[in-house]
Amino acid sequence: MVYADYNSSSPLTSQVGAYLQKRLSGGGPYANPNSLHHAGRQIMKKIEESRHICAEILGAKPEQILFNSGSSEGITSAFHSCCEYGRKNRKKHILISSIEHHAVIRTADYYSSKGFVITQIPADSNGVTDAEYIKSFLRRKSKGVSLVSVMAANNETGVVQPYEKISAFCRENDVLYFCDTAQLIGKLPFNFEESGFDFAVVSGHKIGALPGCGILLIKNPLLFTPLILGTIQEKGLRGGTQNYIGIETLAIALEDMKHSISHIDLLRASREKFEKNLKEKFPCLYIAGEIKERLPGTTLVSYPGIYGQAVQIELESRGIFVTTSSACLDNDPEPSHVLQAMNVPDHIARGAVRISLGGDDKGKDTYSRIFSGLCRAYERLTAIGSF
Amino acid sequence: MVYADYNSSSPLTSQVGAYLQKRLSGGGPYANPNSLHHAGRQIMKKIEESRHICAEILGAKPEQILFNSGSSEGITSAFHSCCEYGRKNRKKHILISSIEHHAVIRTADYYSSKGFVITQIPADSNGVTDAEYIKSFLRRKSKGVSLVSVMAANNETGVVQPYEKISAFCRENDVLYFCDTAQLIGKLPFNFEESGFDFAVVSGHKIGALPGCGILLIKNPLLFTPLILGTIQEKGLRGGTQNYIGIETLAIALEDMKHSISHIDLLRASREKFEKNLKEKFPCLYIAGEIKERLPGTTLVSYPGIYGQAVQIELESRGIFVTTSSACLDNDPEPSHVLQAMNVPDHIARGAVRISLGGDDKGKDTYSRIFSGLCRAYERLTAIGSF
Repeated sequence: MVYADYNSSSPLTSQVGAYLQKRLSGGGPYANPNSLHHAGRQIMKKIEESRHICAEILGAKPEQILFNSGSSEGITSAFHSCCEYGRKNRKKHILISSIEHHAVIRTADYYSSKGFVITQIPADSNGVTDAEYIKSFLRRKSKGVSLVSVMAANNETGVVQPYEKISAFCRENDVLYFCDTAQLIGKLPFNFEESGFDFAVVSGHKIGALPGCGILLIKNPLLFTPLILGTIQEKGLRGGTQNYIGIETLAIALEDMKHSISHIDLLRASREKFEKNLKEKFPCLYIAGEIKERLPGTTLVSYPGIYGQAVQIELESRGIFVTTSSACLDNDPEPSHVLQAMNVPDHIARGAVRISLGGDDKGKDTYSRIFSGLCRAYERLTAIGSF
Repeated sequence: MVYADYNSSSPLTSQVGAYLQKRLSGGGPYANPNSLHHAGRQIMKKIEESRHICAEILGAKPEQILFNSGSSEGITSAFHSCCEYGRKNRKKHILISSIEHHAVIRTADYYSSKGFVITQIPADSNGVTDAEYIKSFLRRKSKGVSLVSVMAANNETGVVQPYEKISAFCRENDVLYFCDTAQLIGKLPFNFEESGFDFAVVSGHKIGALPGCGILLIKNPLLFTPLILGTIQEKGLRGGTQNYIGIETLAIALEDMKHSISHIDLLRASREKFEKNLKEKFPCLYIAGEIKERLPGTTLVSYPGIYGQAVQIELESRGIFVTTSSACLDNDPEPSHVLQAMNVPDHIARGAVRISLGGDDKGKDTYSRIFSGLCRAYERLTAIGSF
């Protein structure tokens, strides 16, 4: 089996797997970390140790780490907090890139229905958000903006966004910046303090921790308005008994990440060679954001006129797991909104297949198997005239 | 070790532990359940199987099961959905019992700050919410009520509330009823359809599943407004990649519950004998809701004048883990709001210690060890005049 769907989800890292084996075999401790007895305190101690490890690796202070259930909760929470602030301060404008994840788009839609005005920032044909647009927008209207939301790296194309510039513009204009870092963290180096972001997210299942856990990074926790209400947990910032087993795996997966990040140059080089070989064999191929900096293991490729789902099925019959660009479950999906924002013509957009590697995979053997698979898929599908 | 803190959190059931050992040793599958490839589909299939198992055991339809991160999210979601509906329909009144969990109280406070009017329903000295108060309130003002929130069983006293009556009053008056069932489900029989509730919750870690997962039961999913926004997950009712490992453990723990529920009579009888013996030895002891139906394994006991934390520490030195009535972390805590609502005098309220059993424990041996521990603790603490 070749798993090439890391942008959707990563398998547990081997360290996380080994940890859980040990953690779950001993029969404990399982207790409420907020209980004052020994079993509870042991768990709380481990949560705080995990918080310190996560903080150090992510370049944050421990109090800036809010453990939660994952990125969608993180996104909704960041918007909720910024919009509460915006309501109190007559800031009714939200800027989002036109290539944001659906979770961001749908959250913005919700606030649109509540009287906020959403402006979509255009992207160019390489899938890069127009930072200058934000600069000029903020120069004119920064006082009315409750938040800017532009992701760090796109989940479909892998294209890295100009988040450093955007972050600087936001700081200059005293505007809150939420950056969806769910794809970047774990695949490229990241430092929260240096980023200047007001909010960023970590998705547990995307970095090889358990599903159902994640982190919301908050620059200023004192100004945060919680989404999920409760008592004392997470210093009052999130109700609910902490998912302590998930939290323990977050710290381990982030430790593992230090290692996998050390060989991103190898992965990137393997991907570049793979793409070069592909283009040599099929010169008509389209690769999204080809000339731009991308996540080291992400390729969104399309053979114009061949449906991506047909390619996906061909690859799967050879044990290679990829996705089409969108997570859409329809059999005749709309072309992805990301490719639409990039003005990619329909017959190319409908052909998109996303190959995404990560974790410990350095790519060499994997890409060579995907290359063979893709060649046979394209040869077969062009021969039977599926386009 | 004697673990007597089931109302805070339950250890993993043995079946859940065994399942996870097997599940995590094989190295998979780990994938995004929303990906269309085989690995993703396998996980999605398991999620839907788990949903059917949970639905059947809880007396609900599969589409009424919304998997989430736990009860606090469930509570916040139910309030969010009801208050969105209330806003649109000029229903600005919320009724909550005065003995609700802090997560409910804090959520109600949030909506109070948003213009909703909160009315606290009184409880009697046995810790039973006044159902007649609700009846008469609804008779006068039902049109303006966005929801009623009265728990099924209290987390501190274990006292079972008149939720059947309240549910009937709400249905008669066409008012939404959210019932916090986090303590009841797993400890007493429950059937969602028969209950008539509009919303109920299951907390994973309270029934022996993994922490960080749970269920919001929704009578009418078509009218539900999601809290956490995203794409297609959970039919659009909750964003975020599903916590599939947590979900798998929910189904197993609920299966286990069928067995543990079968011996609640034994557990109740053991508790009654334990309480009788305690009162014979220390006639001055106060037991909250003593004469009322309670969760079969819950006793909130106080020796008037002796601090609960002192008793807790004494018990812990003998390897017995209990909590005081509140989860407050302060060294000089406020008496619990539940005992205050019951008009329990301060010198008794401050002495409260909660002993809570559940899961597979039939209680006999456990109660006999707790009895010895408590006797020694009270003898020691009265002797050194700690009161």
